[in-house]
Amino acid sequence: MRQLCSLLVLWGLGVNVLAAPPCAPSSWGAEDEIGAANLITPESVLAASQLIKTGKTYSLGITIDSNTPAYPPRQMSLQVVQPGQQQGRRVMPNLTYNDDIYIGWLGIGSQLDGLGHVGDSDGIYYNCNDAKDFAQFTGLSKLGTHNVPPIVARGVVLDMAGYKGVPYMKAGEYFTVDDVKAVQEKQQTPIREGDVVLFHTGWTDAMLASDPKVWGSAAPGQSEEVAQYLADLNVVAVGADTWGLDVSPAPVPERASQGHVILLKENGIYVLETMNTGPLVRDQAFEFLFILGQAKVRGAVQMIINPVAIR
Amino acid sequence: MRQLCSLLVLWGLGVNVLAAPPCAPSSWGAEDEIGAANLITPESVLAASQLIKTGKTYSLGITIDSNTPAYPPRQMSLQVVQPGQQQGRRVMPNLTYNDDIYIGWLGIGSQLDGLGHVGDSDGIYYNCNDAKDFAQFTGLSKLGTHNVPPIVARGVVLDMAGYKGVPYMKAGEYFTVDDVKAVQEKQQTPIREGDVVLFHTGWTDAMLASDPKVWGSAAPGQSEEVAQYLADLNVVAVGADTWGLDVSPAPVPERASQGHVILLKENGIYVLETMNTGPLVRDQAFEFLFILGQAKVRGAVQMIINPVAIR
Amino acid sequence: MRQLCSLLVLWGLGVNVLAAPPCAPSSWGAEDEIGAANLITPESVLAASQLIKTGKTYSLGITIDSNTPAYPPRQMSLQVVQPGQQQGRRVMPNLTYNDDIYIGWLGIGSQLDGLGHVGDSDGIYYNCNDAKDFAQFTGLSKLGTHNVPPIVARGVVLDMAGYKGVPYMKAGEYFTVDDVKAVQEKQQTPIREGDVVLFHTGWTDAMLASDPKVWGSAAPGQSEEVAQYLADLNVVAVGADTWGLDVSPAPVPERASQGHVILLKENGIYVLETMNTGPLVRDQAFEFLFILGQAKVRGAVQMIINPVAIR
Amino acid sequence: MRQLCSLLVLWGLGVNVLAAPPCAPSSWGAEDEIGAANLITPESVLAASQLIKTGKTYSLGITIDSNTPAYPPRQMSLQVVQPGQQQGRRVMPNLTYNDDIYIGWLGIGSQLDGLGHVGDSDGIYYNCNDAKDFAQFTGLSKLGTHNVPPIVARGVVLDMAGYKGVPYMKAGEYFTVDDVKAVQEKQQTPIREGDVVLFHTGWTDAMLASDPKVWGSAAPGQSEEVAQYLADLNVVAVGADTWGLDVSPAPVPERASQGHVILLKENGIYVLETMNTGPLVRDQAFEFLFILGQAKVRGAVQMIINPVAIR
Repeated sequence: MRQLCSLLVLWGLGVNVLAAPPCAPSSWGAEDEIGAANLITPESVLAASQLIKTGKTYSLGITIDSNTPAYPPRQMSLQVVQPGQQQGRRVMPNLTYNDDIYIGWLGIGSQLDGLGHVGDSDGIYYNCNDAKDFAQFTGLSKLGTHNVPPIVARGVVLDMAGYKGVPYMKAGEYFTVDDVKAVQEKQQTPIREGDVVLFHTGWTDAMLASDPKVWGSAAPGQSEEVAQYLADLNVVAVGADTWGLDVSPAPVPERASQGHVILLKENGIYVLETMNTGPLVRDQAFEFLFILGQAKVRGAVQMIINPVAIR
Repeated sequence: MRQLCSLLVLWGLGVNVLAAPPCAPSSWGAEDEIGAANLITPESVLAASQLIKTGKTYSLGITIDSNTPAYPPRQMSLQVVQPGQQQGRRVMPNLTYNDDIYIGWLGIGSQLDGLGHVGDSDGIYYNCNDAKDFAQFTGLSKLGTHNVPPIVARGVVLDMAGYKGVPYMKAGEYFTVDDVKAVQEKQQTPIREGDVVLFHTGWTDAMLASDPKVWGSAAPGQSEEVAQYLADLNVVAVGADTWGLDVSPAPVPERASQGHVILLKENGIYVLETMNTGPLVRDQAFEFLFILGQAKVRGAVQMIINPVAIR
Repeated sequence: MRQLCSLLVLWGLGVNVLAAPPCAPSSWGAEDEIGAANLITPESVLAASQLIKTGKTYSLGITIDSNTPAYPPRQMSLQVVQPGQQQGRRVMPNLTYNDDIYIGWLGIGSQLDGLGHVGDSDGIYYNCNDAKDFAQFTGLSKLGTHNVPPIVARGVVLDMAGYKGVPYMKAGEYFTVDDVKAVQEKQQTPIREGDVVLFHTGWTDAMLASDPKVWGSAAPGQSEEVAQYLADLNVVAVGADTWGLDVSPAPVPERASQGHVILLKENGIYVLETMNTGPLVRDQAFEFLFILGQAKVRGAVQMIINPVAIR
Repeated sequence: MRQLCSLLVLWGLGVNVLAAPPCAPSSWGAEDEIGAANLITPESVLAASQLIKTGKTYSLGITIDSNTPAYPPRQMSLQVVQPGQQQGRRVMPNLTYNDDIYIGWLGIGSQLDGLGHVGDSDGIYYNCNDAKDFAQFTGLSKLGTHNVPPIVARGVVLDMAGYKGVPYMKAGEYFTVDDVKAVQEKQQTPIREGDVVLFHTGWTDAMLASDPKVWGSAAPGQSEEVAQYLADLNVVAVGADTWGLDVSPAPVPERASQGHVILLKENGIYVLETMNTGPLVRDQAFEFLFILGQAKVRGAVQMIINPVAIR
């Protein structure tokens, strides 16, 4: 009885014995908001720029429209308008113009998950920030993606589908730490601190156009252990050619997307989704200079992006 | 009377003798949709990448929010939401998350003007495209910014304010071709084919935070002749640290923003607005590698951007 | 030749000999913005209120959601949110609350077409108002539906399907002036000045739920002559249980929705769409008190409505 | 110690001894979603319709636009557009048209608060509905305002300002049960079961146009006891010519807007805000037929409204 009482006391005091571990401040300081982007320095950029050998560029973002599947209830629409020019009216005598309005979620298609996107089950995010404090309705007061400096780094794409000898990995199929190690070895592209790591599963090339519904309902991806492995390597960002990076459905349903928690919340490492890795892999461009300058909307959680790879 | 009749006949037939000259197809072919971005090649990228000397990066986009002044009636709002998590509900046992919805115009703050943004007074845009044909309400069917490949090029910032010996140029003050030539000479940064040219007027650094209303109501900028001069040099894009690049108000009111017509419509050259050139100028980083990967929304007219400069 | 010249001169002067007739000011004055709503007086309301015999009420609006078909590209979404209450946070100690954001067109489902909705081929609307002058992007500066006073009038529903002996009229099938006269006679409900006239075709009851795509792609409806006939009777509004009132497709394609032009533009008579007339017809409630108080958004073109019938 | 343990045990079990009382199912049944609207019957409507004596109508909704103050972060914008008609293009040869897009909150200006708008501090709403269960992001799955049948009832406006001998009551000033009783007596308009009760404080007439900021930051209104008094009288809806009905700021800050909880949550009685009561009071039209048919958007929490009064 005393023990039961003790447990209930703990519970009553909000100490959920089954829940997330207590939060540890970031190694970049208790006020830090950008996490692993701190690893980017002029020196690291200069070194990564040496990877430019041919000058060929790659657009790592896909084109999105109102038909692009997205995590429900995400959706978007675009409105092209001509203010003041109704029925051929002119606002200036020498020109005409179009403008456009985007109404939609920022987590559609190729996207940057900021550090304010996923937290633990207690609502605690990167660097012990509590959603109750920073997740303001009109924009995050902390951890917004507008804070993220240019992510310019060595990029490595790991061809997981090629390693497995398939055009694309199947929905629900995941790759392990051993797989990731083997591909690094095979490609001769060891992952290093400060890298941006992209996984090529073949999923988007195979399914997005041909069966968008299936594409968006599940995906191959990393196991939870891979996320931890990459975090231990101190990478800057991890992405994949899938809408969610983590394998879906998750092997352990109650730990779905746990890789996001490990990367974003526990390690301040960015997640990049629906990266167009196919052209890189087809060119065997496994190493490249990765450049991301995301549009800076104050307090944004995510952002539609189109990183550039140069090799 | 016969002459009057002739004139009226011409008028009746839609030949407006006062209007835009007949359209000439693009030198990149009648089907081309990307204009001067055709000038970007692996060779040009490789050459430009040699400008990376220190690895220091610059975020050329500013942070926008609902208070950022924009060309009326442009406006925006951000909504941070937690679907399925109302009143502490959990959608997954192991995590919580935030998402966000952007409702707003794509021509706010730092922006890319696509080739479908400005046309002549007859509604004819780059490469003889008629707005009646391509300016579909749900997205441009031609000239959308999603078509634009990565703009990776030699970037040159021209410090017009420094040349004039002022912290910032005044609203309505414009710089001429001679000014632009003189600054190139002074900085030893000749403009070349394929460059991205940015003008630093000091306007945004001086006024955006201190007096946003004034900032958005007028601006210093290029004269119409400068636009033509740059077009003749075959640059890829022209930008400035102002919301409109062209001087405002225009010296000749009925030719307001005519530089946009010259660049976008007549030459397929992109316009970049509200570029954060101050840090480059303060570092005297007059030459750099310019990288822009804009988010790809199908049929978008413009796009909020954050190009990266590396020197 | 002289004649050709004359014609071209006329043409050149903007006198399109094939186009809309010159505009005549409204009989309610050149400044009038509410058209046939002027017919509503305390006397007419008092008389119509005598139609209340049982106190039974009818909701004439249907429920709309994101699946409701609408004239492209019209669409809508609703967002239910809890500002400040993320992860169980409280904004007040004693309560919790939900709010909602509507993003969508006002012409979806049951709707009021205001006098600024449809004009002639020259862009001229009710009372000679030119869209170039009043169709401001942020709200009509004239003819907005916020101007419309309460429409309280005798309502008459004409059971066209019952008259034809079918559960519902077919897409593309129209009723004529003779049909309308016959139904008035059959029902003993003569249409009078100041009435709101609703047509029951059975289309929405039969098709909206069972085949929404077909429902929205065509419809039975009034012929053009019926619109003129009703206008000559000086009614206040004309509606139907279809999305467009006019038969669709139109018998003469180049006069599609011409009934809208006749009613709205030429006569200042309101159009009511997707009225839920089924319950009235099933009760043989052919006469009733009609009450519409539309939400008043300044400068709105249309409005989602839910008129009330009382008999 | 044992007692402390007991308390903590209770707390641990989620029994917050300081919080809302346990929920009692509605007297209209555990499945009921419309609350006091159940009181409206053909008999009650027929009786109320006898109040029509002159046929004069009143629009009880105000006109809203993007400048109308609203409870933060509520806001709205209207976009008037002409799809397919860019630069004078025609979609049909015989007509032109305008459409409009509303982007905004439904709780702006004159509004209906549905039963899903305010719940107690535990997130429990009318009829023991838990927000966790019904407050779906894309629309309430219960208690949506689309469920509300036409509210046709005897309307009574109580001129609280007139009773107090002032043109308008001051911000933070509240009226008591005694005041309400006295005004009923003075006006000879006893409140009865099934009524819609509106309070005229003069606040909106005095302040909305002249000082919108002040208008929206505080208001006179009902005390908490008045809400309970009206609930005990079994009214259908309670409104006022203020944005929040309850006095603001509240005399007891931690019970702000408690009248909403009493009416909506505990009694299923609707709240009507920013009702344009001035014209009624000026006409001494203290009794009238009240008719509300709100636009029916599935799952909406609130709705912009414009009820009609007829006397």
